[in-house]
Amino acid sequence: MRKNTEQVFNFSAGPAALPKAVMQQAQKEFINWQELGTSVMEMSHRSKAFIKVAIDAEQDLRDLLNIPDNYRVLFCQGGARAQFAAVPLNLLGEAKTATYIDGGYWAESAVTEAKKYCEPDVFNARSQVDGKVSILPASEWKISPNAAYVHFCPNETIDGIEINDLPVTDKPIVADMSSTILSRELDVSKYGVIYAGAQKNIGPAGIAIVIVREDLLGLAKTVLPSVLDYTVLAEKESMFNTPPTFAWYLSGLVFKWLKAQGGVKAIEQLNIEKANLLYTYIDQSDFYRNDVHPDNRSLMNVPFQLANANLDPTFLELAESRGLKALKGHRAVGGMRASIYNAMPIEGVQALVEFMREFELKYQ
Amino acid sequence: MRKNTEQVFNFSAGPAALPKAVMQQAQKEFINWQELGTSVMEMSHRSKAFIKVAIDAEQDLRDLLNIPDNYRVLFCQGGARAQFAAVPLNLLGEAKTATYIDGGYWAESAVTEAKKYCEPDVFNARSQVDGKVSILPASEWKISPNAAYVHFCPNETIDGIEINDLPVTDKPIVADMSSTILSRELDVSKYGVIYAGAQKNIGPAGIAIVIVREDLLGLAKTVLPSVLDYTVLAEKESMFNTPPTFAWYLSGLVFKWLKAQGGVKAIEQLNIEKANLLYTYIDQSDFYRNDVHPDNRSLMNVPFQLANANLDPTFLELAESRGLKALKGHRAVGGMRASIYNAMPIEGVQALVEFMREFELKYQ
Repeated sequence: MRKNTEQVFNFSAGPAALPKAVMQQAQKEFINWQELGTSVMEMSHRSKAFIKVAIDAEQDLRDLLNIPDNYRVLFCQGGARAQFAAVPLNLLGEAKTATYIDGGYWAESAVTEAKKYCEPDVFNARSQVDGKVSILPASEWKISPNAAYVHFCPNETIDGIEINDLPVTDKPIVADMSSTILSRELDVSKYGVIYAGAQKNIGPAGIAIVIVREDLLGLAKTVLPSVLDYTVLAEKESMFNTPPTFAWYLSGLVFKWLKAQGGVKAIEQLNIEKANLLYTYIDQSDFYRNDVHPDNRSLMNVPFQLANANLDPTFLELAESRGLKALKGHRAVGGMRASIYNAMPIEGVQALVEFMREFELKYQ
Repeated sequence: MRKNTEQVFNFSAGPAALPKAVMQQAQKEFINWQELGTSVMEMSHRSKAFIKVAIDAEQDLRDLLNIPDNYRVLFCQGGARAQFAAVPLNLLGEAKTATYIDGGYWAESAVTEAKKYCEPDVFNARSQVDGKVSILPASEWKISPNAAYVHFCPNETIDGIEINDLPVTDKPIVADMSSTILSRELDVSKYGVIYAGAQKNIGPAGIAIVIVREDLLGLAKTVLPSVLDYTVLAEKESMFNTPPTFAWYLSGLVFKWLKAQGGVKAIEQLNIEKANLLYTYIDQSDFYRNDVHPDNRSLMNVPFQLANANLDPTFLELAESRGLKALKGHRAVGGMRASIYNAMPIEGVQALVEFMREFELKYQ
């Protein structure tokens, strides 16, 4: 098989590949940003130059997602796991429960953390259709009348499951969008809180975006550490504490890059094209298999299995030698996983399919 | 006055300048790290290559500070403000109070956060000697017999105060070393917990180091978010959540750089030389003034005032044009502040003193 060490395509689920143009720009200005003779990461977060970065990043994100004016955008330290605690501590108020829709690994992880603060009402939304994992229609999800909010994870990074429905409820909807945000169009006005760790579709690990409807501020419990308090962060423009400035700056570059690609609508079309290419190839093959029902397949994370799992190590080794990196599936699922976030060009998916075809021919 | 736009010296208090050699190396390998065709920030934290980064960083820090084996080293998301909550939530156990030694702005900020979790017993250690701010000797500090621990901040970044004493107590001593860690020799065995936000002497903002004595693990309160739970982080080798990998990597490069400089002992000598140069010049002048008693002057953060504060804007503007950046004092103190962390070469302090002399001659 052809060896190619020049072109690398990184299918990591996160921390994930960032757009090449963004990384090249960041490298170029790494030690002399804006001709200031210093790196952006070596400047005060309160300097004029950095505050412009912060404001621009928020505005670009607002433009990309059409975020309504009654929502605040917060740039928080940490990732989604910190939000697993922040959500109940910010939103429960006097309530003793919240409904968690369970669609996979990360939804369950959020439940585990929520148990510290309430008795979560968990609805298992998974089902089987034609031997494939699927998600029950939202009309069948049971939501507790006492729930302070309804939490779900629209894209399960590990399981490769995407939930296209929204909970049918008048309660605030809270969504962990870590691996789906900015990948497809989104009506923010339907949500109470959207949060996302950056390290998939936004920027480097260590920063999380929280989009919160203003009327949900002011409910935080006293025990909530101030750095996770949405109200404090909103009042202080996400600078109550020293924010992770370099991660914020890089996220801002990614937002500008995405605008230059035509925004979310354009990237969604490309993402659909990329995912179709890969799923179509898998489905026509008896050598590879994806276990998720087509209605709930993730646009971003494509797990697949080899019919003969003994070939897994060979597959991974040869893929690596072809510059197709980080294809090993999560230990909870096994097999392979191709994460094809916004930064993955279609050429990467084409190269993967080409390799899969050659591998199948050789080892079937 | 001579204008110099080529050489820039960045006196920012934090996020602060990092060693030039480190930044150059990081730039060089920014998009092709270890010839892997990808950035270190685009790789899984569980990849072999990154785990080596993580292990090396911990070992190098252990070497630099001679950290005893019965201490765990944690790399946490966030900075010192997150630790202001994490410390009481991890250490209080059944106790209702802890003693906080108040030596300045940051010690007080830690008290404010601690009030969420206990009734802190606050001892104001500040005094005046010869019209200068000084710190009472530790033998006079009153410590509550009911305190779970004694917290203090050995270097106050804003006030420019350094506390050289240790609390006289058999209770665990907890120190916020954000702006002093690695600047001078340290006997870790005398502490229960040492923590430090990275963005002064370690790396970029968004990561904090926690050094915790093992017998203090296991006391966390249930309401503590798991991402701040020392026991969870210790069990999971700081990978319970996706860590801020790029900040961790850069911190590791800084540790290697510091070893190459001869370690903490060697950098301490240089730091003393740098601080002496600046304080000596300030003290012999009637034009400039530092308000801290010589016994408690910070080795890292040197605030100073102009006798005529009307000249402040001119001073800052001319300094900036000479490549002497970020000298404006914190809004709580006013005047100027030169932060001269490990990464500041002595040439930077020499250039500052030279500029101060020229400015004094011109405007006195």
